[in-house]
Amino acid sequence: MSEPGHPELRQVDWSRLFSPKVVAVVGASDTAGSPQRAQWTQVHQRLGALGAEVIPVHPKKPDILGVAAYPSVTALPADPDIVIVLVRDPLPVVEEAVARGAAFVVVFSAGFGELGTAEGDAAEARLKELASGKSRILGPNTNLNIFEPWPTDLPSRKKLAIITQSGYQGRPITQSQALGTGIEIWATIGNEADLEWADFAGYLAEHRPDVGAIATYVEGFQNGESLMLAADACVRAGIPIVAIKIGRSEEGRVMAAAHTGHLTGPDAVHDAVFDQYGIIRVDDLDEVIEISNLFCQTGLLDGPGGIAIYAMSGGTASHVADLFGAAGVRIPKFETSTVDALEKYIPWYLRRDNPVDSGGVITARPENREVLQLMLDDPNTDVLFAPITGVFPGMSDALSRDLIALHQRFLAGEGKPVVAAWISPIRDDSYRALCAAGVPVFHSFNAAVRGLSELGRFSRFVREYRSPFGIETGVPSATERAAGAAAARDLLAGAAGVGLNEADSKKVLAGYGIPVAGERVVGSADDAVAAARELGLPVVMKIVSADIAHKSDLGLVVVGVADEAGVRATYERLLATAASAAPSATLDGVLVAQQVTDAVAEVILGLSHQHPFGPTITFGLGGVFTEVFKDVAFAVPPFDADRARKVIESTKGAMLLHGTRGRPAGDIDALVDVILRLQSLAQDLGDSIAELDINPILVRPAGKGVVAVDALVVPTAT
Amino acid sequence: MSEPGHPELRQVDWSRLFSPKVVAVVGASDTAGSPQRAQWTQVHQRLGALGAEVIPVHPKKPDILGVAAYPSVTALPADPDIVIVLVRDPLPVVEEAVARGAAFVVVFSAGFGELGTAEGDAAEARLKELASGKSRILGPNTNLNIFEPWPTDLPSRKKLAIITQSGYQGRPITQSQALGTGIEIWATIGNEADLEWADFAGYLAEHRPDVGAIATYVEGFQNGESLMLAADACVRAGIPIVAIKIGRSEEGRVMAAAHTGHLTGPDAVHDAVFDQYGIIRVDDLDEVIEISNLFCQTGLLDGPGGIAIYAMSGGTASHVADLFGAAGVRIPKFETSTVDALEKYIPWYLRRDNPVDSGGVITARPENREVLQLMLDDPNTDVLFAPITGVFPGMSDALSRDLIALHQRFLAGEGKPVVAAWISPIRDDSYRALCAAGVPVFHSFNAAVRGLSELGRFSRFVREYRSPFGIETGVPSATERAAGAAAARDLLAGAAGVGLNEADSKKVLAGYGIPVAGERVVGSADDAVAAARELGLPVVMKIVSADIAHKSDLGLVVVGVADEAGVRATYERLLATAASAAPSATLDGVLVAQQVTDAVAEVILGLSHQHPFGPTITFGLGGVFTEVFKDVAFAVPPFDADRARKVIESTKGAMLLHGTRGRPAGDIDALVDVILRLQSLAQDLGDSIAELDINPILVRPAGKGVVAVDALVVPTAT
Repeated sequence: MSEPGHPELRQVDWSRLFSPKVVAVVGASDTAGSPQRAQWTQVHQRLGALGAEVIPVHPKKPDILGVAAYPSVTALPADPDIVIVLVRDPLPVVEEAVARGAAFVVVFSAGFGELGTAEGDAAEARLKELASGKSRILGPNTNLNIFEPWPTDLPSRKKLAIITQSGYQGRPITQSQALGTGIEIWATIGNEADLEWADFAGYLAEHRPDVGAIATYVEGFQNGESLMLAADACVRAGIPIVAIKIGRSEEGRVMAAAHTGHLTGPDAVHDAVFDQYGIIRVDDLDEVIEISNLFCQTGLLDGPGGIAIYAMSGGTASHVADLFGAAGVRIPKFETSTVDALEKYIPWYLRRDNPVDSGGVITARPENREVLQLMLDDPNTDVLFAPITGVFPGMSDALSRDLIALHQRFLAGEGKPVVAAWISPIRDDSYRALCAAGVPVFHSFNAAVRGLSELGRFSRFVREYRSPFGIETGVPSATERAAGAAAARDLLAGAAGVGLNEADSKKVLAGYGIPVAGERVVGSADDAVAAARELGLPVVMKIVSADIAHKSDLGLVVVGVADEAGVRATYERLLATAASAAPSATLDGVLVAQQVTDAVAEVILGLSHQHPFGPTITFGLGGVFTEVFKDVAFAVPPFDADRARKVIESTKGAMLLHGTRGRPAGDIDALVDVILRLQSLAQDLGDSIAELDINPILVRPAGKGVVAVDALVVPTAT
Repeated sequence: MSEPGHPELRQVDWSRLFSPKVVAVVGASDTAGSPQRAQWTQVHQRLGALGAEVIPVHPKKPDILGVAAYPSVTALPADPDIVIVLVRDPLPVVEEAVARGAAFVVVFSAGFGELGTAEGDAAEARLKELASGKSRILGPNTNLNIFEPWPTDLPSRKKLAIITQSGYQGRPITQSQALGTGIEIWATIGNEADLEWADFAGYLAEHRPDVGAIATYVEGFQNGESLMLAADACVRAGIPIVAIKIGRSEEGRVMAAAHTGHLTGPDAVHDAVFDQYGIIRVDDLDEVIEISNLFCQTGLLDGPGGIAIYAMSGGTASHVADLFGAAGVRIPKFETSTVDALEKYIPWYLRRDNPVDSGGVITARPENREVLQLMLDDPNTDVLFAPITGVFPGMSDALSRDLIALHQRFLAGEGKPVVAAWISPIRDDSYRALCAAGVPVFHSFNAAVRGLSELGRFSRFVREYRSPFGIETGVPSATERAAGAAAARDLLAGAAGVGLNEADSKKVLAGYGIPVAGERVVGSADDAVAAARELGLPVVMKIVSADIAHKSDLGLVVVGVADEAGVRATYERLLATAASAAPSATLDGVLVAQQVTDAVAEVILGLSHQHPFGPTITFGLGGVFTEVFKDVAFAVPPFDADRARKVIESTKGAMLLHGTRGRPAGDIDALVDVILRLQSLAQDLGDSIAELDINPILVRPAGKGVVAVDALVVPTAT
């Protein structure tokens, strides 16, 4: 599946996990009532059924429930594909297994990183070390879900794959079977000392064509890059990831750290990455189940996602239309011919255009199916949605039969998908019949609106997707980029203390072709006047010092210095003010800069490190936009120009860049260019830069560019 | 229940609706299979069971199914309490019923205002006219739900009342019975030509002590004031209103108008009113059912709403804690003594403080009830919440039994409430046992978090509530207020065209004691200089004209005029600019005003008419706050100073009024005072003023007051 220049997830020989020949179970037991006896029995049955020789390892017993046992992994009669470690002190066994060349070691027990103790961290670090060779380790703090067999007689077109960091939060997701969706596989990944979320997601995308959706519960990701590579593989395979991700609040972050030791990371940056890769983030298990069920039953849509609504009352039609409208989902008008044809069935005082209000009048009659078929056949319809309140069984039974018949036509390749909501807390035979037939069913109007919204959105996302991996933005050019990086490294290497001063910070930007205001750093009033003469009046003047933050607040920035006498006076005044306001600061001179007089807006751009993604770009408009409204957007490299533009447009402040009340529009193209240049800088120098802020960067009218007016680069502490 | 000075809802003699002696059914039929036969039978049975004489009215038949019929309402042998009209052309029958003195007329058929035709509107207007006397009309476009009897053997402490504008959207709410909550009454109010939502809600608050919650589906309210009075009565009775209100989107607004003819009205203003009266707005039927069920089962809380969480896994604990945290719901720490006592039961590697992670280890054991009891007994706990995924029946059965036992103690007055979430799509015997016992059960973690959040919030709301009806804010004083109103009426009566000019608009404000910048309107450069000398330099100067909007954009406002020569020059320049920019405008002179130099923030205040509430106050900070972020808050009179303060604080921009980055805090007290004065103005002059904008009003540092700098008053068109 990979393309030239496209980075790849690491290669794992999964065949030895899923089709093992020899499996050892260390800690297998025959003690009645012990968990280890149950686990041994389970593994012996399940992997035995796949044709594996499953061997118990026990220090003393000659056999476990009739199967010959061996005293250690070293003593095994054959090289194991998998060693399952059920003992409480697993490290020595893992060492033995790795030495014996086991392809996979499954570590059941907890007591590692999630403890938050030095001993726990050391044990987990040792596991990682042991995984540095050819053996892959699953766990610790995992279980045997990965080997669980699943019923194969469910009606869904595709199957659900589940990846969770908690067994107890994964088992409920398997209840998607009650809605008609079969399970392909469930990986419980625990602490992820070695095998991690991305290994499984990438594997599913590339090797399991039956997967229709990945449902996942994640407390924190181990590695941002592999997450993005795996998500990229999923989009390219057309597989949606429906995710619960802990970290909405401090309460969740604290509890997650105690549970599997994962760091949840900054929530808004996760949202940004999810948006970049189309990951569908939900808040609850019912949403994971119902939305992934929808994808497994219907597959992706070809059209733009237009919903035809069939309601049995005007109240339900009003309510559902209100919710779809608020969610921004299209309820297209029907063609006139459809409305005309519906006239035959729907009485004059009810609505025949979308949403159709049958008033319940014909719902229980045979011709109702004709109505549904006409609605489905309308070229504006991509999906038919039928909300059912379940309060009049005569109507809901008949409608359910019609929906099942239409779904069967869809499965036969002769129609479009139908979706139901069954909102009654009473779930009767018709409800069960819909589920058994594989008609996607939601438990509320709102849940259905969310699901159908995601179905349309992800379908469009896949159609429009271009992988950002391996692309070259070309800004700056390779030559310029190499020179910029080299010059920046010199500046960074020479920097001491908190960061580069403003002039040096701007040199780093200029090296990547980011426009900075024309400026000179001067050491005397005479030089200031000369600089102002060269740059053109008016000018901005400010103190240069890496030791002073918030220069404006201290009166150390003066704008609109209009003549040479002013330049001279301002020079002296700035030095005096700095001496009294920040007596211990080292002053590097006074900066004299061109003043931009036609700025449409002030924006800020930043580069920071965000767990687990590394260098991350921040964009927002200045002032109250970021300070009061947190109207900030993030982008994690790699990304292309389209994404840079989306990041800008995702802020509310972008409205100012479009021109308002007679003010001109800003040069968004130039801003996109600068964001791409900053991405190149982040990719080249991210490891050496702890933080970079351009605040502000002035956006001039369209075609006139942008200008960085102030900047701060803080090198990584060494 | 009413207090002196407190306006009241209209009085209705409900006894004749709920305990009628004589009921006539016009349109009763014995035609097999006809809806009218079924309706006749239903009414005859139900109201007959209450002791009423139920009489069919039929033009020709001597009896209907054995009950003697009369040819018309006029011919009835006794005066009817209720006339139920099932015929297609109901107006003549309603006229007859009103003439005969029927206390209540129930109009079944549609074909009125919801048609959106002149005929429909005329018919509805005629109904309203007929209801102007002693007869109350229910409907049109209603049904017989109001007479429906309900099972009385359900376990809930209190019962649910339902009010809906759609029968089909109400029937699903009666399924709250499946969760254990009994129904008190269900009123389907249709088009509300006469009897409206507020009549029923007010009646329930004042006369039905068994009601624990009102669940409602509303497309649009007929009357804002009666809605507020009824909601006020409900809060005073401790009854929460859980409401679906259509109008989130244009799609819903259009469909609702076609359904019951209701205007949904501006959504954000409804949210403001709901906030003022503690109305709980939800989006879907499952939320209506589960949240009102919670209130009926537990009643209001005494404490602040601290939740103790009992989870069976660290994953579930992380997930639930994350959701509660994001919703801002308290998960208090336990006392040390509780944590110590839990040590006896919960293994060392699991969490014993809130949220407790039992790890499933003891869940199925008898001592689990001790754990739950310890958690409940902790003084920080107001409610215990137990999420159940239902995947291990052994555990969920045992936990359900424990929860039922604890709930029974609570019902016996010996403990605190327990709440469960049952998130499995598979609803087994334990689920049904929880419902049958009256333990409140939610279908997802998220739904439970929302419900528990509302339970704590509404309980606090009721404790802190002071009715705003009948209060006097005292600003301005009665004398000042009368004078201000009289002066304003003179100005408004003399106004022609689009509105008062700025100076007159400010006079209206000043009459109510709203501070305006000291200013003079002048007609010559000499007078301008004299005014500036008197007011003190610097000054602001601007054109006065009711014909010119957006003066700043046209260069017709000049700030910082610093000396007398400048005043003279600016005067001439303003006239010249106005002549070229707005040649057809009538100029009323030039305004010379004091310039405020210490403003902390610019805010806007407005008064507008919002259906169905009438005069409504708008507050927001100026500039991007309102233009880009729509960071605006509403308040509908009457309200007190606390509400005015809440309205200010509900905007994000309020942060600027608290002082940021070294800037002083603004005079919020003065702003509250001005909002109350504007309310008095709205109450006195709301009918005469279409719109009033104060933009901007400058907020000076705390203790220094606020100053209205520009204002526009637009009289109601006559």
